[in-house]
Amino acid sequence: MTNAKGKTPSESAVVTRYLVMPQQANPQGTAFGGAIMGWIDMVAAMAAERHCGTEVVTAGIDSLSFKAPIRIGDHVVLEAAVNYVSRSSMEVGVRVTREDPATGISQLATTAYLTLVALDKDKNPVTAPALVPKTDEEKRRYENAKRRVQQRKERLRQQA
Amino acid sequence: MTNAKGKTPSESAVVTRYLVMPQQANPQGTAFGGAIMGWIDMVAAMAAERHCGTEVVTAGIDSLSFKAPIRIGDHVVLEAAVNYVSRSSMEVGVRVTREDPATGISQLATTAYLTLVALDKDKNPVTAPALVPKTDEEKRRYENAKRRVQQRKERLRQQA
Amino acid sequence: MTNAKGKTPSESAVVTRYLVMPQQANPQGTAFGGAIMGWIDMVAAMAAERHCGTEVVTAGIDSLSFKAPIRIGDHVVLEAAVNYVSRSSMEVGVRVTREDPATGISQLATTAYLTLVALDKDKNPVTAPALVPKTDEEKRRYENAKRRVQQRKERLRQQA
Amino acid sequence: MTNAKGKTPSESAVVTRYLVMPQQANPQGTAFGGAIMGWIDMVAAMAAERHCGTEVVTAGIDSLSFKAPIRIGDHVVLEAAVNYVSRSSMEVGVRVTREDPATGISQLATTAYLTLVALDKDKNPVTAPALVPKTDEEKRRYENAKRRVQQRKERLRQQA
Amino acid sequence: MTNAKGKTPSESAVVTRYLVMPQQANPQGTAFGGAIMGWIDMVAAMAAERHCGTEVVTAGIDSLSFKAPIRIGDHVVLEAAVNYVSRSSMEVGVRVTREDPATGISQLATTAYLTLVALDKDKNPVTAPALVPKTDEEKRRYENAKRRVQQRKERLRQQA
Amino acid sequence: MTNAKGKTPSESAVVTRYLVMPQQANPQGTAFGGAIMGWIDMVAAMAAERHCGTEVVTAGIDSLSFKAPIRIGDHVVLEAAVNYVSRSSMEVGVRVTREDPATGISQLATTAYLTLVALDKDKNPVTAPALVPKTDEEKRRYENAKRRVQQRKERLRQQA
Repeated sequence: MTNAKGKTPSESAVVTRYLVMPQQANPQGTAFGGAIMGWIDMVAAMAAERHCGTEVVTAGIDSLSFKAPIRIGDHVVLEAAVNYVSRSSMEVGVRVTREDPATGISQLATTAYLTLVALDKDKNPVTAPALVPKTDEEKRRYENAKRRVQQRKERLRQQA
Repeated sequence: MTNAKGKTPSESAVVTRYLVMPQQANPQGTAFGGAIMGWIDMVAAMAAERHCGTEVVTAGIDSLSFKAPIRIGDHVVLEAAVNYVSRSSMEVGVRVTREDPATGISQLATTAYLTLVALDKDKNPVTAPALVPKTDEEKRRYENAKRRVQQRKERLRQQA
Repeated sequence: MTNAKGKTPSESAVVTRYLVMPQQANPQGTAFGGAIMGWIDMVAAMAAERHCGTEVVTAGIDSLSFKAPIRIGDHVVLEAAVNYVSRSSMEVGVRVTREDPATGISQLATTAYLTLVALDKDKNPVTAPALVPKTDEEKRRYENAKRRVQQRKERLRQQA
Repeated sequence: MTNAKGKTPSESAVVTRYLVMPQQANPQGTAFGGAIMGWIDMVAAMAAERHCGTEVVTAGIDSLSFKAPIRIGDHVVLEAAVNYVSRSSMEVGVRVTREDPATGISQLATTAYLTLVALDKDKNPVTAPALVPKTDEEKRRYENAKRRVQQRKERLRQQA
Repeated sequence: MTNAKGKTPSESAVVTRYLVMPQQANPQGTAFGGAIMGWIDMVAAMAAERHCGTEVVTAGIDSLSFKAPIRIGDHVVLEAAVNYVSRSSMEVGVRVTREDPATGISQLATTAYLTLVALDKDKNPVTAPALVPKTDEEKRRYENAKRRVQQRKERLRQQA
Repeated sequence: MTNAKGKTPSESAVVTRYLVMPQQANPQGTAFGGAIMGWIDMVAAMAAERHCGTEVVTAGIDSLSFKAPIRIGDHVVLEAAVNYVSRSSMEVGVRVTREDPATGISQLATTAYLTLVALDKDKNPVTAPALVPKTDEEKRRYENAKRRVQQRKERLRQQA
């Protein structure tokens, strides 16, 4: 799958869809944030695994934002794509859309950026294939992600 | 969403992708058949709901066939499309493909045909929008499903 | 457990009973079809394992039919028996009855036929003990299952 | 179901059987005690509901004892019967047997006594039908349970 | 962690807190007894593991008593402490308090005594560190637990 | 619970502890990131509910960072405290520590900042009680959180 020339974001991008069940409810009867986060982590891991072809581990999440409540019975569509790669680290962006099956109307519900790390068989970080953005949208995402990666490094330096 | 002219299969088709977790394991360490069936039922319900825009209930499954074992860590891709509609009944076909994230190689793992029924607010069957197959593939599936629906009726008559 | 003379269906038949909990609900508040299917697969596996004394794997399901909705709080009784054996393949029939605990009234809710395969330690198919139907009911089931096995083979030939 | 003459223990007794799945494992790889307890509570509730025909609530458990470890892949058989009834309170005895599907050998794994209370629609305790033991075994269980109920009352008095 | 002088109960005591979710509901909409028992078993195991520093297994529960119903949305606080140690056996007491997050009012909901056994790497019982009660409350619990351990032994002798 | 003078962070702070079970494993056999996130969301919600005494909803997470892998069988201790309050919004900080029960050695595993919003009965944002930091540590956290809240607002402005 991997070659010297790297891979495009669309080669590893994934889309998935869940029917929100009562098992995902919080005590208020809407979807529990923690359940959505579990789905986000899983879809991000799938995109990252498809990019690097190795095991991956989640290193962090930032800017996860719930923009609209998700109801039991809604369909949720999760889209994940690798935005940026630096050595063993991959930034994956996830978009969560809720869709009302009665009307077909959909609405952006959640967005998140996750950092995942490619691992070799001994669980040590291993260099991931280069990411080669092709479309204008992919290039825009790449540049924005690059900036966020810098900001994360600065924030970590400040905390240290 | 619904109109007098009906809807095409592609308007309601859904694709989803799951990472098979240890929670889905059977005692032998491969994916538990019952977990796969739960995913198949859910993805079929989502396609049916998108076609009819109402609540649906599963009336039956036939010809669910496991063609290859699914392992923990595999990605599974589930594709569901409405094949045929007759009054309130919809036949939905589901294809399950397993994908090895390390190699990207995928393999047909399971297929199934489900019958779902459109329900109104009082849980009574309600006529679903007509299905209008457009592509040759959709027309072929429509004719095959029509034949299976006849065969199911005959089998039920024999059992009565 | 196994001997040269084979085993009767009643030697491996199993009966189980579950209380339907809110965890099994679909968004409409009745029992989720996928949860019932998981129970059906599990009870069929237990009957098959008791017949052959080895690991088993589900190869397929046909004619699973939901005849009555199951509500949260219902008791469900699942009965599974091996109907027919051919080399490593076993057809298991499952009957699901729902029982209203307040009235004790019970009702047939679901039936299904599953095909399971006996496996040796290396996960290869292995010949299962012969099935020796004893009662008239067991003989009737055996003959009906034999006919269904023929029909399945024909259908597979047609698809090939 | 209920009449002036009461009901026998066998009229409400229940038997159920589970295949122990990896989902029930503790970190040591055997069945998690809490999962077994959940099954015990559920089977006891089903027997009590069948006796009284109303909602029930668990008031307590005593003498739950794990006598043999349960392994992933084992079949577990749970048998529950109402031993004794006093006004709204029912003592239910539960026996858990593990069965090795490869050999068919079974072994007593756990026993427990639970006290459940019959509730009316407003969740208030309501008198349960009288229990009428018929067989010698049922009569022996009734007398033993009666003694345990006395001992529980004394223990509670001591604690007060 | 362990030394010749033993450990005090407070060195291994644990406190935990859960938000009761719809996933823990019984068909009546309050917390399912089996879910509470699972939490009790887990918190008891954590206290026992912290005392002995080895794997543990639950040998039994007695006197588990539900004193107040727990509702979905409640916070439950579980407190576990080792009361008494005799060779490889540890008695752990668990107190469950429910807290209404709207008012902050809390109420004793459940109490239980569990017996856990320290295991070595081969799953054989191994001597646990001595328990050294320090405070008056710890000494009172120690003496009460000692008496209960005697009563359990007598009861087992009577049953034999 | 609430009064004109506000509440200190320690009045609503919560500590909880989980035993990591095989149910929380990812395909690599360590704790699944999504499961940890679910626990983080739950403990943050409990701290926020205790501060404001109303329902809460998670609006976002930032800076969730996994610093050490968590293994099956580990104890994890989650500590949550309200750091800052602005109208209906509360920033809650969560620290996750893993503890090896065999050695008692513990290690910082994860940290996260969540924003939760207090809701009234109609699910509209409602002003939360003022937060009154008392200790130096609480004051330091308050000032740091205040700065982060500003940075989040700026980031949102940039994205708009």
